[in-house]
Amino acid sequence: MAKEIRGIAASEGIGIAPAYRLVEPDLHYEKRRIANPMVEYKRFMQAVDASSADLQLLKDRAAGRLTPDDLAIFDAHIAILSDPELLKQVKQQIDQQICAEEAVDTVTTRFARTLAQLSDPYIQERAGDVRDVAKRLLSHLLGKHLPDIGAINQPVIIVAHEVTPSDTSQMDTRFIKGIVTDLGGRTSHAAIMARTLGIPAVVGTDHITRATKDGQQLVVDGLQGTVVVGPAADQVDHFTAKAQQLAREQKEWRQRVNAPSISKDGQRFEISANIGNPNDVAAAVQQGADGVGLFRSEFLYMGSDHMPTEDEQYQSYRQALIGMQGKPVVVRTLDIGGDKPLPYLPLPREMNPFLGYRAIRISLKHPAIFKAQLRALIRASAHGPLSIMFPMIGTIAELRAAKKIFNECKRELQKDQPGLGNSIKLGMMIEVPLAAINAEQFAKEVDFFSIGTNDLIQYNFAADRGNDEVAYLYQPLNPAFLGLLKHVIDAGHRHDTKVAMCGEMAGDSIALPLLMGMGLDEYSMSSSSILRTRTLMSKLDTNECARLADEAINQCVTAGEVRALVKERLGEIN
Amino acid sequence: MAKEIRGIAASEGIGIAPAYRLVEPDLHYEKRRIANPMVEYKRFMQAVDASSADLQLLKDRAAGRLTPDDLAIFDAHIAILSDPELLKQVKQQIDQQICAEEAVDTVTTRFARTLAQLSDPYIQERAGDVRDVAKRLLSHLLGKHLPDIGAINQPVIIVAHEVTPSDTSQMDTRFIKGIVTDLGGRTSHAAIMARTLGIPAVVGTDHITRATKDGQQLVVDGLQGTVVVGPAADQVDHFTAKAQQLAREQKEWRQRVNAPSISKDGQRFEISANIGNPNDVAAAVQQGADGVGLFRSEFLYMGSDHMPTEDEQYQSYRQALIGMQGKPVVVRTLDIGGDKPLPYLPLPREMNPFLGYRAIRISLKHPAIFKAQLRALIRASAHGPLSIMFPMIGTIAELRAAKKIFNECKRELQKDQPGLGNSIKLGMMIEVPLAAINAEQFAKEVDFFSIGTNDLIQYNFAADRGNDEVAYLYQPLNPAFLGLLKHVIDAGHRHDTKVAMCGEMAGDSIALPLLMGMGLDEYSMSSSSILRTRTLMSKLDTNECARLADEAINQCVTAGEVRALVKERLGEIN
Repeated sequence: MAKEIRGIAASEGIGIAPAYRLVEPDLHYEKRRIANPMVEYKRFMQAVDASSADLQLLKDRAAGRLTPDDLAIFDAHIAILSDPELLKQVKQQIDQQICAEEAVDTVTTRFARTLAQLSDPYIQERAGDVRDVAKRLLSHLLGKHLPDIGAINQPVIIVAHEVTPSDTSQMDTRFIKGIVTDLGGRTSHAAIMARTLGIPAVVGTDHITRATKDGQQLVVDGLQGTVVVGPAADQVDHFTAKAQQLAREQKEWRQRVNAPSISKDGQRFEISANIGNPNDVAAAVQQGADGVGLFRSEFLYMGSDHMPTEDEQYQSYRQALIGMQGKPVVVRTLDIGGDKPLPYLPLPREMNPFLGYRAIRISLKHPAIFKAQLRALIRASAHGPLSIMFPMIGTIAELRAAKKIFNECKRELQKDQPGLGNSIKLGMMIEVPLAAINAEQFAKEVDFFSIGTNDLIQYNFAADRGNDEVAYLYQPLNPAFLGLLKHVIDAGHRHDTKVAMCGEMAGDSIALPLLMGMGLDEYSMSSSSILRTRTLMSKLDTNECARLADEAINQCVTAGEVRALVKERLGEIN
Repeated sequence: MAKEIRGIAASEGIGIAPAYRLVEPDLHYEKRRIANPMVEYKRFMQAVDASSADLQLLKDRAAGRLTPDDLAIFDAHIAILSDPELLKQVKQQIDQQICAEEAVDTVTTRFARTLAQLSDPYIQERAGDVRDVAKRLLSHLLGKHLPDIGAINQPVIIVAHEVTPSDTSQMDTRFIKGIVTDLGGRTSHAAIMARTLGIPAVVGTDHITRATKDGQQLVVDGLQGTVVVGPAADQVDHFTAKAQQLAREQKEWRQRVNAPSISKDGQRFEISANIGNPNDVAAAVQQGADGVGLFRSEFLYMGSDHMPTEDEQYQSYRQALIGMQGKPVVVRTLDIGGDKPLPYLPLPREMNPFLGYRAIRISLKHPAIFKAQLRALIRASAHGPLSIMFPMIGTIAELRAAKKIFNECKRELQKDQPGLGNSIKLGMMIEVPLAAINAEQFAKEVDFFSIGTNDLIQYNFAADRGNDEVAYLYQPLNPAFLGLLKHVIDAGHRHDTKVAMCGEMAGDSIALPLLMGMGLDEYSMSSSSILRTRTLMSKLDTNECARLADEAINQCVTAGEVRALVKERLGEIN
């Protein structure tokens, strides 16, 4: 029978496909005496061949990404599979009517233990390789698969405890029809990436991994935040119809792909796209983005096995600018640390990484890394309207230090190419509370602000947005928080500083009228939310919005009151 | 030769005493053939006796604190030391000219392994006991000591990588003459507790544990932040003289023990003490505190092996009120979580504990625990002027929820004792950025604010105060942060809400004129800082201070500029 599981609606859309469990399989087996050793050994050799084929495929796919040294690991694993001593010992066991699973387990455990006891550290590490190979053999013998996102080549719905950046970097949107996770909230990595990739997603279900078997049919409703496991035929019909309804709405929204982002009373705004790499530009253009409001440059670094060179970065930024066909692109400088580590830049382990060494704090202490990025950006600015913004600025001293390094780079490059980079606009993220409070001073020193609501909320409420126990403190609609946003926007406008927003809140339908009412200039969001937002914007009057925002900030006391107020008014509008 | 090591001045005063390394000793030994097995076995038996005596002493000292079940562990360890089989096997080894260290190591390892392989989990745990006993035996054989703060009974200077709350809870101030640590900053636990206990301390030396041997003479200069290892005679003289000079200044300050806390122009303030338990009241009274501005009630919980009952808490609060002889006492409700766990209340492991489940967030989800504390407080209020403040309030909804539970408790108790608790003043910590921003709203709902600068700074700058990489962002004097403090104080005063401060900043000489200039009402600090602060306060004119604060907030851009400005003016005053 079908069962319904509730979670948090994280990325809109409906997906219907079999489950693909991104979970280490249970490799326990029953010890049993087998009747026919010859048949059993053949079964074992089939597992060897399948494992070998797996490894060859993994190696081929990784060929572009990894160094020869790293690729050699696959050969080492394949070599273990044809080790004559290992094969011989397994055969001896099977000949004694021991099942293949137990034979593999016993022999590989013995091999690994022997290797681990030798004094040569290189050989000791091979013990780990033997254990990896044993895991792969057992999975084939047991008919279970070791999950491998990159190998997916038919429609599936990913079911996982949580989804990491390295997982999403391998996802092929042609085949991934939905994502469901046990953990996470609307601003978890999985949720943000699902929206960026346009994949329906439900997160925070608590127990989807326990409730689903591999290959079981699933419906993911990313609008309502529900998952149906093993849907009945009429449920499949219902959700197919719902998907069609959504498609019709999307068709209405699509009318506005070339329309300006304009309110009912004719006031002009910008609705831009958040992207992670230059390939995302295609979706942004397709969804009619007025520009790129946030290019998260850290994904260039996280998707690489080495520090990207100035030239590699230049190519990426250039590609994005050219792809946007004259529309502006805002690149945020490296925002690593926190929950985003880099394999080739060791950082200290921290007790509170969100309050730690990250983003501009790292860039300012590693001027060589920072300069390579700034030089790449300045060079790329020849190809289109480029803006640069600095993340995690808290003090004027930090901002000035960053600008100083930028100006050094510009001077160096202008020796050869006079005027290069002069058109670049400089801005900063508003995400550290003190930066928001001190917006008046900062506005004098930058061309634009971009409010990063995810971090700004978590710091202002002192509540980790990934921590379920304090999830109730993620309150973008809290009246005092809205007041702080208004303070930032007003301060910006007093100094001709444009104010954008690139956090989650920018794409939220309830927040939109409030932000329009405060005069926020630019709304940067997942490409998949742009047309819906532009459509809603066209139905809103900025004067009414301004009254609504005033009322929310000055008459309401709780976030719940603000939500109710906006819903009531939006109901009148629609 | 003497060497000097620099660190951070964390608690003022000069300490001269031998080092006591609070570091697990290196128990490696050289394998050697011994000549005389009889002599060697005697050496082994001396280590057995010494270990046995250790354990008996530890047991006796713990008798008051631990339950009979927990005390039994000591008997189990003593029993292992007299196990005939173990003694026999060690003797056999020594008879083969194996040294006692190796004999102990070999035999205990064999014993532990055998126990660990048995299936009974109770017996498996005994393997750990055997390893603990082996460690103690080896330490005696090698002439090294296993550190044990509670056993210290002569003057020493504690040298440690870092100092934990469980360490400080065992410190006897009669013998601990100084603390030096590798890690930590001015607001680390070690630093705060050192000031509370009045022990000179230098933290953040990076390598004191590597640079010091046990028993080596040390000078700790908690004024300058330096440590001298192996001082020469003239250095000892110099520091002894310096200690005497400090004693003279302290004598001058002591004149004001019964004086009011008053500015040069006669404006009255309050200077109060931060305490951790009722025994700290003696020092507060002795230092002339105008009250207790912060009773950290969590230490009652952390110092106990069970959740303190309502009655146990009542006794503590009552004792503090009686001890303060009619002066006001402000108790902060339970502030656990973050870096302060409780053994008997399991909390989830968190990626960012400072942004996690702590303080009022826990109290509101555990009403039984919260009510026991509030009932104890309401009952204690019969014995003196009591105020209650709630930690980590971020939203109006949280404050109202806490007040609602308080009022329920009061109504319940008033059934038997009409009017009980009506004199209690209710307040809240200002430490979550949004609470500071929203001070105007909050001021309408409480009798007083208490600004917790340590947390307020770390959240506003999004920088963990325990993380060296971002230590530069601990900026109490940042002009924008000062502006936020002024906003809080002004908002409080518009609604007749008293504004106190109980963070580090309240006891800082540079901050004092700025805070007086903003009109901060109450300054709560380590008892050891009260008289120094009262003396400085008497030399400051509030009108000049107000001009200074305005200048710092409106003319300065960086914390460094503010520091320079205040130092210049203070120079003129003194």
